[in-house]
Parts: sequence; C-alpha cells; structure tokens
Amino acid sequence: MHILIIGAAGMVGRKLTDRLTADGRLGDREIERLTLVDVVAPQAPAGFAGAVETLTVDLSVPEAAPALVARRPDVIFHLAAIVSGEAEADFDKGYRINLDGTRYLFEAIRQEGLKGPYKPRVVFTSSIAVFGAPFPEKIGDEFFTTPLTSYGTQKAIGELLLADYSRRGFFDGIGIRLPTICIRPGKPNKAASGFFSNILREPLAGQEAVLPVSTDVRHWFASPRAAVGFLVHAGTLDLSRMGWRRNISLPGLSATVGEEIEALRRVAGEAAVKRIRHEPDETIIKIVDGWARDFDASRAESLGFVAETSFDDIIRAHVEDELGGTIG
Amino acid sequence: MHILIIGAAGMVGRKLTDRLTADGRLGDREIERLTLVDVVAPQAPAGFAGAVETLTVDLSVPEAAPALVARRPDVIFHLAAIVSGEAEADFDKGYRINLDGTRYLFEAIRQEGLKGPYKPRVVFTSSIAVFGAPFPEKIGDEFFTTPLTSYGTQKAIGELLLADYSRRGFFDGIGIRLPTICIRPGKPNKAASGFFSNILREPLAGQEAVLPVSTDVRHWFASPRAAVGFLVHAGTLDLSRMGWRRNISLPGLSATVGEEIEALRRVAGEAAVKRIRHEPDETIIKIVDGWARDFDASRAESLGFVAETSFDDIIRAHVEDELGGTIG
Repeated sequence: MHILIIGAAGMVGRKLTDRLTADGRLGDREIERLTLVDVVAPQAPAGFAGAVETLTVDLSVPEAAPALVARRPDVIFHLAAIVSGEAEADFDKGYRINLDGTRYLFEAIRQEGLKGPYKPRVVFTSSIAVFGAPFPEKIGDEFFTTPLTSYGTQKAIGELLLADYSRRGFFDGIGIRLPTICIRPGKPNKAASGFFSNILREPLAGQEAVLPVSTDVRHWFASPRAAVGFLVHAGTLDLSRMGWRRNISLPGLSATVGEEIEALRRVAGEAAVKRIRHEPDETIIKIVDGWARDFDASRAESLGFVAETSFDDIIRAHVEDELGGTIG
Repeated sequence: MHILIIGAAGMVGRKLTDRLTADGRLGDREIERLTLVDVVAPQAPAGFAGAVETLTVDLSVPEAAPALVARRPDVIFHLAAIVSGEAEADFDKGYRINLDGTRYLFEAIRQEGLKGPYKPRVVFTSSIAVFGAPFPEKIGDEFFTTPLTSYGTQKAIGELLLADYSRRGFFDGIGIRLPTICIRPGKPNKAASGFFSNILREPLAGQEAVLPVSTDVRHWFASPRAAVGFLVHAGTLDLSRMGWRRNISLPGLSATVGEEIEALRRVAGEAAVKRIRHEPDETIIKIVDGWARDFDASRAESLGFVAETSFDDIIRAHVEDELGGTIG
C-alpha cells in the first residue's frame, strides 16, 4: 500500500513515519510506498525497504494538493497545521493553512475520484481546542464545539468538512482530537502548554524546569507513543462503525500537575522533583484556566483507541523512547 | 441607520423588508437607508421615506461582498442560501454559495474594518439542519452539530466563522437557527417539508392538499411572522449577553401533524379538514423520520426570543397576514 503523510516533519509526523517503517505494514497490508510531505523537507527514514519520496510542499497553495493526490495514496495522514498561538497572531495565515489547505486536500481527493474510482482513507488530526469554556468537568462525546481560538475554529470546520466529504462518499475519513501530547521531546518551548512537558523532561535530563501554575491545575494528556498508536488505529479501523459521526475525542489521562510531579518522584526520585522551580506566571495561569480538564471518551474507547492510564506510564514511555532507558 | 438585507427577494427577506419599512426603525434607531440584495432583483418597498437601493448580486462572486460592504451598513441581515435539496444535488454550488459566499461577506467586513473603524451587526440565518440524527427527543442548547446534509454542514461552518469573526472583533454577529417556517405562503412546493404548510394553507384557501406522512409525525415550527420577529430582535439585542457563543436554536412550537389538523379544525372547521387527502409517500416518510422533533430553546427564550405556543396562533397569523383575515 501507499501512504501519504502531510506534516511529516513535525514531531508526531516523524514518530509516525518511524513506526510505519519499523512495522513495514499498516494493519494487514504491507507498505510499499511512502510519500512524506511538509513545508520543510522531511527526512527519509532509514532502513525502509519500500519506495520513499520526500517533498517540500505548502498545502495552502491551491496546486499542491492535486499534485499529491494524483499519486493516489491508499491512506492519507493529514497532520499539517500551524499551531494555536500562530493562528491567533496571524489571522490570514491560520485560515489559509489550517482551513484552506485542508479544504484543498479534501477537494483534490474528490476531483481525483471524478477521474476514476478512488476513495482513500483520510486521517485528520483535530484538537480538543474545538471545545471552548465554559464546559463540564468531563466533556462528553455529544458536547458542542464552541472554540475560543481561530485554530480551534479551523479544526472544527475541518471536522465538518471531513464528515460531509465522507458521507458523500468522496473518501473514508476520521477526525481525531488528540489530547495534549506529554512528554513532548526536544527543547523547552514557549507554548503556554509547554510546562506540562518541561517539568518532566528537563528534570529527567538533569536540568531545571519552571512551573508557572499551581499543582492543582488539571489537564488531559497522552504520550507521543500513544498518539502514534491512535493514528495507526485510525488508519486501519472499520469506519462504518462510526456512522457519519466521523470526529471523535480520543482517550487520554486526566491528571493534575501535582500528580505529574508525584509520578516523577516515583520514577526518578526526589532529586528530579527538586529541579522544578515554582514561578507563577499570571498570563499562563489565565490561559490554562480556560482549558479542558477531563473527557468522557467512551466512544473512542469502544472503537478500540487506547491511551496511558497513569503518568508513571507516560514518563516510562519517554525514558524508553527518548532517553534510551536511562534517567539523567 | 443603514440596513443591508442579503437574500431580500426570498420569502423571509420580503417579509423582513415589509416589517422594517412599516416600522421605519430598528430598535430605537430610525432607518434612513435600505440596501436590498438578491440573485434576482428584490422589489423596492412601497411607502418608505428613506433611501432604497435594490441590487442583483451573486454573493459567491468574490468581488460582490466588498462592493456591498463598502456602503458601510450598520446592520447586515444575511439570509441568502440555496436550500437543502439543491445543495445536496449540486455539491459545488452548495459550497460556493452557502460557504464561500458567507465567508466572502465576513471577510469583506473585516477588510473594510482595516480601512477605518467599522463593526456592523451581522444577523446570519442558520438552520436546525446543523443537527443530525440520532438526537434526543428535545435537542438542548449544548448538543453537538453533526449535520447529515451538505446544507447543514455549510450552515454549521457559517456559524463557526461567525463566532470567530465576532470574537476577534471584526463584527458583532449572531447566528439564529430558525424552526421550519409554517405556514409558508405561496404555492405548494416539492420540498420534502412542503406538506407541513400545504395541509393548512391549501384547505384554508378552499383547495385540496396531500398529506404524505402519518399524523403522529412531530416537528418544530414557527410562523413567518415569528421569523421576522426573530430577525428584528437579533438585530437589536445586546449580544454581549451571549459571550462568544453566538449561535442559537430559536424557540418554536413542537407539534404533530395531528395537532396541526386539530388546530385547522378549530380555526376553519370540518370542511377545511376534509380537504386533506392522506397519500403515504415512503420517500418523504423516510426523509422526515430523520428530522428534529423538539428543542429546548431556553437560552434563546432567556434572551427574549418569542415564538407561537399553539398551532391555532400559527394559523391565525397566516389568515391575518396572507388572507386578509378571511378563510376561503
């Protein structure tokens, strides 16, 4: 089979590529061809027997999607987006990339199907940012989407388009709302959500980290490893089980910062915990206050999506996948 | 003040124009200027003292909206859309008019605001078609939008855009989901929902009508008069009371076809009821089976939106507004 990954150079895209090339298959079908696409050149994976093409493509250029789809991939992972902060700062860019780019892709698939039978699987990464406060402590599967960011708006529109294009038979699509990925590998970043990862990743590597909120802040998490598992499952699942409700909140772990820190203590000891410095930041406190804390993801669970159930597991996944099993 | 009505030649647009010109004001502000726009030339209202401009405009042409918005109307009623059946039959046309047209309008307002301070009120008519079965017997204010038509998808996307453009401060918008309008004036039409009006309007005029479903079918209604009342209220309401949740299901009357017929009997007598011929139509039965039956519109009620509470009132409104008070 032929798999196209759009957004292949991002953190999740790279991990998905690694997983697919390691497995050599998606579900019960062998992967013969990979097309890896991003706005910066994705790296070709090492040790993959099949054909690999890496392309630098801006999906918001109208001609880009038709050229990709003309290759007729069997499965398309659409992970490309600019993030929340950037979509809020640059209104035009957010709509151009997150909305127009997605619509160009969906429409290119439809147009390709008009040339001859073609109905790929499309896996679209949406976001819990489609929900906006106030919401219940646990957000259920039938709660409405009232985003409070342009990014969340663009994702919610992508979900609606995906469901309609699927219903009309143009492709077989699923939109998955990923929890906040933790522990994000790499360097500390300035995203408002960065500290959730920083306060674990940095101490595990022997570095100091800053905690800008109180320890009772609760949020919704899954590991990068779980995120890749979600994508692979979404790429193989029988979607007729979803009817036309093709967008779904995925399972995650609802945990407080305090619970994160206790897990760090259990896995890495008191010395690691001592590397966290409390430095309240009113701006971040205010932003995070509007975020979802917990979800009832029964529907996704019944469809076989699985996430971690403890922060100990999330930390251990990081130590295994990023630190070669060793705590610094 | 200056009011722009897009979709002014449609049934609701014409009734809104009549109401505004009869009142001479919207809320506490005098109407000095009306711009009436549709894909077919709207009629200029008789007996209106202010300036009137009627324009034939296709909103799906990118240049159309900027030219309209350059006139800087204070209030914009955006009623223009192609209907559900047509949007389902012609995928491209539906997206072009119902989605692109709406987005061009919203974006034109934003661009106009970049030239100099400008923040009009925007009233967007959405639809209960944003909801898709299965749903609860009474659809609440926080139920999710999973449309089962392209029309419903396009309206749901319009709602998301309206909320985001309002949140970003580009205009002050409200999206209102109208109940099914009953009794629609005019001739019987072939819309699947047509019979709800036909079985009242035709007998009231001394004509026969066909009932294609059973009398226990339940649906959600408001009169054309109530619809105009909704629009006027939406044009004047203090929208800060809505926060950023700017889209809302309006009040209506949940009634069965049997209740419609009983009201007809009370208002117009047994002779009128005898003009209804039962002729089951499996296609229509199946379509209508997927429609919403009832809503909890508490939020709209608390914001002051008011609909009829009995079918007798709906029928009487029709007799007064369309038949000059006389039953045929």
